[in-house]
Amino acid sequence: MLGAATMPFDKFREECGIFGVFNHPEAANLTYLGLYALQHRGQESTGIVSSDGRTLHVHKAMGLVADIFTEEVLKTLPGSIAIGHVRYSTTGSSQLINAQPFVVSGGIGNIAIAHNGNLTNAMEIRQELESYGSIFQSTMDTEVIIHLMAVSRERIFLDRLIDALARVKGAYSLLLMKEDALVALRDPHGFRPLSLGRLDGATVVASESCAFDLIGATFEREIEPGEILYVDKEGVKSFKPFDPVPQTPCVFEYIYFARPDSLIFGKNVYEVRKGLGRQLAREFPREADIVIPVPDSGMPAAIGYAQEAGIPLELGLIRNHYVGRTFIEPKQSIRHFGVKIKLNPVREILKGKRVVVIDDSIVRATTGRKIIKMLRSGGATEIHFFISSPPTRFPCFYGIDTPTKSELIANSHTLEEIRKYITCDTLGYLSMEGLRKVVDGGRASYCYACFDGRYPVEFPVDIPEPQMPLFYNIS
Amino acid sequence: MLGAATMPFDKFREECGIFGVFNHPEAANLTYLGLYALQHRGQESTGIVSSDGRTLHVHKAMGLVADIFTEEVLKTLPGSIAIGHVRYSTTGSSQLINAQPFVVSGGIGNIAIAHNGNLTNAMEIRQELESYGSIFQSTMDTEVIIHLMAVSRERIFLDRLIDALARVKGAYSLLLMKEDALVALRDPHGFRPLSLGRLDGATVVASESCAFDLIGATFEREIEPGEILYVDKEGVKSFKPFDPVPQTPCVFEYIYFARPDSLIFGKNVYEVRKGLGRQLAREFPREADIVIPVPDSGMPAAIGYAQEAGIPLELGLIRNHYVGRTFIEPKQSIRHFGVKIKLNPVREILKGKRVVVIDDSIVRATTGRKIIKMLRSGGATEIHFFISSPPTRFPCFYGIDTPTKSELIANSHTLEEIRKYITCDTLGYLSMEGLRKVVDGGRASYCYACFDGRYPVEFPVDIPEPQMPLFYNIS
Amino acid sequence: MLGAATMPFDKFREECGIFGVFNHPEAANLTYLGLYALQHRGQESTGIVSSDGRTLHVHKAMGLVADIFTEEVLKTLPGSIAIGHVRYSTTGSSQLINAQPFVVSGGIGNIAIAHNGNLTNAMEIRQELESYGSIFQSTMDTEVIIHLMAVSRERIFLDRLIDALARVKGAYSLLLMKEDALVALRDPHGFRPLSLGRLDGATVVASESCAFDLIGATFEREIEPGEILYVDKEGVKSFKPFDPVPQTPCVFEYIYFARPDSLIFGKNVYEVRKGLGRQLAREFPREADIVIPVPDSGMPAAIGYAQEAGIPLELGLIRNHYVGRTFIEPKQSIRHFGVKIKLNPVREILKGKRVVVIDDSIVRATTGRKIIKMLRSGGATEIHFFISSPPTRFPCFYGIDTPTKSELIANSHTLEEIRKYITCDTLGYLSMEGLRKVVDGGRASYCYACFDGRYPVEFPVDIPEPQMPLFYNIS
Amino acid sequence: MLGAATMPFDKFREECGIFGVFNHPEAANLTYLGLYALQHRGQESTGIVSSDGRTLHVHKAMGLVADIFTEEVLKTLPGSIAIGHVRYSTTGSSQLINAQPFVVSGGIGNIAIAHNGNLTNAMEIRQELESYGSIFQSTMDTEVIIHLMAVSRERIFLDRLIDALARVKGAYSLLLMKEDALVALRDPHGFRPLSLGRLDGATVVASESCAFDLIGATFEREIEPGEILYVDKEGVKSFKPFDPVPQTPCVFEYIYFARPDSLIFGKNVYEVRKGLGRQLAREFPREADIVIPVPDSGMPAAIGYAQEAGIPLELGLIRNHYVGRTFIEPKQSIRHFGVKIKLNPVREILKGKRVVVIDDSIVRATTGRKIIKMLRSGGATEIHFFISSPPTRFPCFYGIDTPTKSELIANSHTLEEIRKYITCDTLGYLSMEGLRKVVDGGRASYCYACFDGRYPVEFPVDIPEPQMPLFYNIS
Repeated sequence: MLGAATMPFDKFREECGIFGVFNHPEAANLTYLGLYALQHRGQESTGIVSSDGRTLHVHKAMGLVADIFTEEVLKTLPGSIAIGHVRYSTTGSSQLINAQPFVVSGGIGNIAIAHNGNLTNAMEIRQELESYGSIFQSTMDTEVIIHLMAVSRERIFLDRLIDALARVKGAYSLLLMKEDALVALRDPHGFRPLSLGRLDGATVVASESCAFDLIGATFEREIEPGEILYVDKEGVKSFKPFDPVPQTPCVFEYIYFARPDSLIFGKNVYEVRKGLGRQLAREFPREADIVIPVPDSGMPAAIGYAQEAGIPLELGLIRNHYVGRTFIEPKQSIRHFGVKIKLNPVREILKGKRVVVIDDSIVRATTGRKIIKMLRSGGATEIHFFISSPPTRFPCFYGIDTPTKSELIANSHTLEEIRKYITCDTLGYLSMEGLRKVVDGGRASYCYACFDGRYPVEFPVDIPEPQMPLFYNIS
Repeated sequence: MLGAATMPFDKFREECGIFGVFNHPEAANLTYLGLYALQHRGQESTGIVSSDGRTLHVHKAMGLVADIFTEEVLKTLPGSIAIGHVRYSTTGSSQLINAQPFVVSGGIGNIAIAHNGNLTNAMEIRQELESYGSIFQSTMDTEVIIHLMAVSRERIFLDRLIDALARVKGAYSLLLMKEDALVALRDPHGFRPLSLGRLDGATVVASESCAFDLIGATFEREIEPGEILYVDKEGVKSFKPFDPVPQTPCVFEYIYFARPDSLIFGKNVYEVRKGLGRQLAREFPREADIVIPVPDSGMPAAIGYAQEAGIPLELGLIRNHYVGRTFIEPKQSIRHFGVKIKLNPVREILKGKRVVVIDDSIVRATTGRKIIKMLRSGGATEIHFFISSPPTRFPCFYGIDTPTKSELIANSHTLEEIRKYITCDTLGYLSMEGLRKVVDGGRASYCYACFDGRYPVEFPVDIPEPQMPLFYNIS
Repeated sequence: MLGAATMPFDKFREECGIFGVFNHPEAANLTYLGLYALQHRGQESTGIVSSDGRTLHVHKAMGLVADIFTEEVLKTLPGSIAIGHVRYSTTGSSQLINAQPFVVSGGIGNIAIAHNGNLTNAMEIRQELESYGSIFQSTMDTEVIIHLMAVSRERIFLDRLIDALARVKGAYSLLLMKEDALVALRDPHGFRPLSLGRLDGATVVASESCAFDLIGATFEREIEPGEILYVDKEGVKSFKPFDPVPQTPCVFEYIYFARPDSLIFGKNVYEVRKGLGRQLAREFPREADIVIPVPDSGMPAAIGYAQEAGIPLELGLIRNHYVGRTFIEPKQSIRHFGVKIKLNPVREILKGKRVVVIDDSIVRATTGRKIIKMLRSGGATEIHFFISSPPTRFPCFYGIDTPTKSELIANSHTLEEIRKYITCDTLGYLSMEGLRKVVDGGRASYCYACFDGRYPVEFPVDIPEPQMPLFYNIS
Repeated sequence: MLGAATMPFDKFREECGIFGVFNHPEAANLTYLGLYALQHRGQESTGIVSSDGRTLHVHKAMGLVADIFTEEVLKTLPGSIAIGHVRYSTTGSSQLINAQPFVVSGGIGNIAIAHNGNLTNAMEIRQELESYGSIFQSTMDTEVIIHLMAVSRERIFLDRLIDALARVKGAYSLLLMKEDALVALRDPHGFRPLSLGRLDGATVVASESCAFDLIGATFEREIEPGEILYVDKEGVKSFKPFDPVPQTPCVFEYIYFARPDSLIFGKNVYEVRKGLGRQLAREFPREADIVIPVPDSGMPAAIGYAQEAGIPLELGLIRNHYVGRTFIEPKQSIRHFGVKIKLNPVREILKGKRVVVIDDSIVRATTGRKIIKMLRSGGATEIHFFISSPPTRFPCFYGIDTPTKSELIANSHTLEEIRKYITCDTLGYLSMEGLRKVVDGGRASYCYACFDGRYPVEFPVDIPEPQMPLFYNIS
């Protein structure tokens, strides 16, 4: 779902990461480790639900995985089945009510659900359900799936689920859990990643393969778009109840979101990013003394550019590794620190140099402008700023936190206007053709909607988001 | 609803206290003060919901009123309408999910509800609602009222409420709140108290009149059994939509629950208790040197006994005023402290004396046994233990936390057996006739079910309580 | 030492309580319980130091005993020797640095010290020690004893202690502890109480005997003024190294500070207070309908008055038992709650009555004024306000927190002026003669300085208190 | 001083970072920002002391700068002078008592002191001072300087300081502060860095120049070994009261401790590290397919090696950026995660490759062994492991947290034994000559004691560290 998250350092924000395990004596511990590896996909809240075969045990909280799941907390999550969730960080009032996994109990039994993505027709369905008497607990789009299952006239859990999914549209990689079963599925378009792994006799699922590496599990395969995996003590069963549609995995997972060591949509992310950098060098060759990345996300593309162009790579910007969530800028100060808190130029490297700077994407360009100023003050004589993706001109409705269309600088300004604003000597974005060339090998297509506005799934424009009364919980 | 609360010092436990205000610029502040005065009715959790005319603002937490509602928190609760709730204290895992007021939003608008009492057919209705697709958020009986309102085919808020109330049975003093209105009502039997007051132009309602005293409001009258007060900017309207039934207010409010300075069911509580002590002296005259109360709740009856009997009152047991929620008995200790933490005998007072000890009620008799032992070790030569209520032999299903029937010592043991267990020289309970004589003046009747087992409202025996997955929230 | 503590409800404030145990396998647990029983002597901070024979283990914190000493914390305090301390509550910034027991290590070994009282020449000594290079860690007067011991040219611990004590003046009941010994002592005047008890083979010491009752220890005797008890594995040795001086125990311990169930200075406190009430009735007989105490401290004297006068005792003022440290008065409120938060009148009792009200002492009279107003509004027709002690006209320099002389209403106003301010019909203080008569039986004398200004030990007027830089610790 | 800190990921640990400012209206805010930039020098505790000209204001706590210094806390630190400190992280019980700046008040006035380094004769002096009656508050070596100042017979603050410094030996970059002055100084050997900067009219000092960059200050010069800067409203005065000795700044600041963007001892750290990598390539040329750094500290040397050797740089190991202080390894797990929590190999990069791996130093070699195993499992066919510093064979006594001599693998094992343990195909350390060549340009010398055991300042071998009683503070 979409929120009003701030966008520090001018990046899109991934919404969520999910992890599940079936049939392992340390299910909650493994889920904790899996979420730890997926922390980059969401830093606002986290939760784990485990099952000991009879009862679901829940722990959810605002904060980072390693802060929340202490040994004491993990002890309260017994059993051999578990699912977990990490969610992105908003500023302002905390919203524990929206933390996932979402858990209900009642007529349809005890169910936990964890969601990565965004349902485009959630409000429409919600209003209809509410008119018949359903009462929602949160503002999460995910909750409509549970209510649709509850009002379904089917009797079997899986049939209720298929019944509910037939009503919803949009992007969803989902994990569901009952006392005795785990369900993992991806929407027919396959917007968000979800992979299947093995660890001894256990089945594991994760948004990205890097979660398997940490726990020592073997990557088996990606769950296919439109596929429902039902895992219980009888084994793993695969269902494909829906008509196939064109597959459109999110290309931005490659460009920025996923961890470089993950394998998603059939490729290693680091290699794709390096490939984008190489392609960038082919599209924008420059006579320059050094290539520097905007750390850390620009590093793989910078290595690619430097190798292809034969220009030395240098660390001209040093990142403070203690930058965290809590930096408080002193209010009374007349200075505005912004990106200086995170990055510092190395004057001795930059002085008198012609510099190529590589970043992965630009959203509002405010950070880029500050970085160029910083490099200029460090002594760079020429600055060529190249972006390893095309201009981001359209908001996402499939699970990524983007600003509104008008806030996307590439939507309202020409390339030259942006260059002037950023104050670099050259500004270059990777071409759409270049992007396709690097990522398309062997796959039909991707969702490029944030670049070209061609949305694979329709979405409503005028239905407002649900509002809940303000909610402050203190335990 | 009924829970597994521990019963420190061998008393029944009141379930809840409620407070509401309409049309006052400091609605949340007044509600905070009102709840502070009603803290004795519940110490587990507390909550306030306020309305600024457009939005409901909620704060709920585990803990005491004065600890939870800091100035900062109260600032987050703007508006001129508010309702609040205090709930009894359980040990073990906290259950913030069950804290009240309960708030929902959706098809029926934003509604907050606060409940004192217990619905006897809640599980029955819940199971029916769930079979049609309703999803419950808590294990509170109160929640069925909201779901019944949500599925009602009526269109007006008040009609939906009456529709819902027509379905539920049991004990309920309720406050409901919308953005622009406050509703206060008592069930037709009038089990739990609820009073109406005035403060300048504002309307206030409270479980007990002591809450009016603190805020400087004037007591106007009690809300009548079966009466619904609807308060909005048009004024206060009274409805009595249900057929009248015999009124059966809870006599235990007089005996133990209510504060001595409150006026409920038409009488001052301190005076009733003193009257019970006087009656006790008439039923059990003794030659004794001193009368001592079990502090603090036995004090009014002890004063009554001493006056009627003409025997000097003394403080033979001193209470530690710092006894609080958090006393941790050192585990490795070989001693068991129990009541010594709370009470200490004054040897110089007791030595060589024939003592009459007055307490208000006995549940399991474990505390009484310890007190007698303590007085004996303090040097008392004779101990006559008189209780200002009849033997409690039946559990309550109307909003009081009682042990099961078999745990009530008076249910399974004869008077002589109890006396031997307690080790006092004489044990005397007030007679039912004596109790009626003191409290009945001018009123038709009370609920005496915990003494005589005559339950005014039927209740189911075999439907299990709803189970929620374990839920730990950390904000 | 003296601080700027606020004086809620117009009472003097006790400074400290101390407890120690030698040769018990659960020394820290017993100390925790002992401090729990002494909590009324100080609510600001608390601390326990234990010894396992090799190392001292310390835990100190701001707050109440039962909140601070969780089972986990007590586990960190091993060994068979322990001392503990409670300190009075100030508002405003916390001062953990001044919490006791005070612990040092170094040239004189590891020493812990806990102090009840006040040294009148501490600043003088401190300035001298600092001029030679001593560095103080706190603003506590207690610390000078440690520094005097450190610079002493004696070699034996006990000789260093006697050397140091020879230099200090004022009031001190002290506990000291080394890895293998416990020392308990009272100043030659015996201002503050300190008693010796036995528990199986263990030696226990406590400010008041009520601490022995809770742990099941036997009261043996009071430690004598000027006596030093040195307890180690060789047994208990008593020393009296100083010339005897007139004994002047603090009479206010009887009037207000000590718990009614304690035995101090040879008498039971409850009996003394009741005797003061009886004497009050003899000095101020009145035709009245009821006698009511200002709860809870006025209760024993009210019982004494009622018995002597033959007028019925009633609870005309009800105390809210949840009044705690944290009550926040809503700032924006136009009302001022003051004493209403704590007390509520019972109209049905007061209406049309001639009332005798009994309290133990008056400091500023602000609370008394509000109580009289409250009773008047409750319907009392005549109000006779009698105080079971003489007018407090002089500040204390021996360990009690009193306001300055000018703030003591009895210092600057006549009896009639005070009566008019309080608005009662009659105001009566117990006479000095009456007080002496009740407390003097069998003892030479007491310190009555707060009443008559005759200070047993001189004190400096013009030396400022030490100032430490502001200190905020967050663990 | 030296502690028993754990050494995660097999590195030496810097002890401390210091920052000070004189004559700026936002002194505490600037100090907060300066400490933020110096966070890599210590993560255990942090503190700031400010002066408003009359009083010192202190805040110290365990934890990271950005977590401790909230806006609320910073508001409690007024004035135009401030000093701050960060200290390294130990595991186990927190030691707030040892947090700096250390503050005393008394005969020598109010003084705050912040120290980076280690005094080699602190225990000797402490024992002597204690024998005369000084009482120490902490186990910090730094405290002896304050006590020496307190017992000095000099009268002027600066003379007392010089008197004290004449007694101590070892490494110390120090900041001292009075209400109206700031003092900054380095020991005559100049072990630890300390620089002087300007910000408008304010004087700033910092362990590293990166702190100046963040606040927008200009780097002026390094404070010289043996130089004392006294800053008050009269201006900045420089004193050199001690005989000059050979300068021996710590070479390990270049190798690992300092931030790459800092300028210390006359050189930019990133450039030195890259130079060490280049020299490594000259000493150990290899036929290989890729060069990979051990992130993040091995990156500059890896860039240098790759450039010199003409082999492509790749990110074969990806670091999890959410690795923090709080990672809890689930206890019941049979797996041991170790370095996997921090690093993950990229199989697609490593598969079938001959790999050169660059790290900056090896302490125990346990991490190196795991990294090689990880790379091997990722598919690398040859692994050449090169270290951009000589073998660390001797512990440091000048302010770095090193293991004991026997735990340093290079002290007790041959190169071949270490290689076998690590399981790499080649292991190469930079030569002493190579190191000198890169760092010596233009400077007389450095302290290389951890490599060659030639200690510039003598130290005692057999005096035990001071022990304080265990100390748990809870505010």
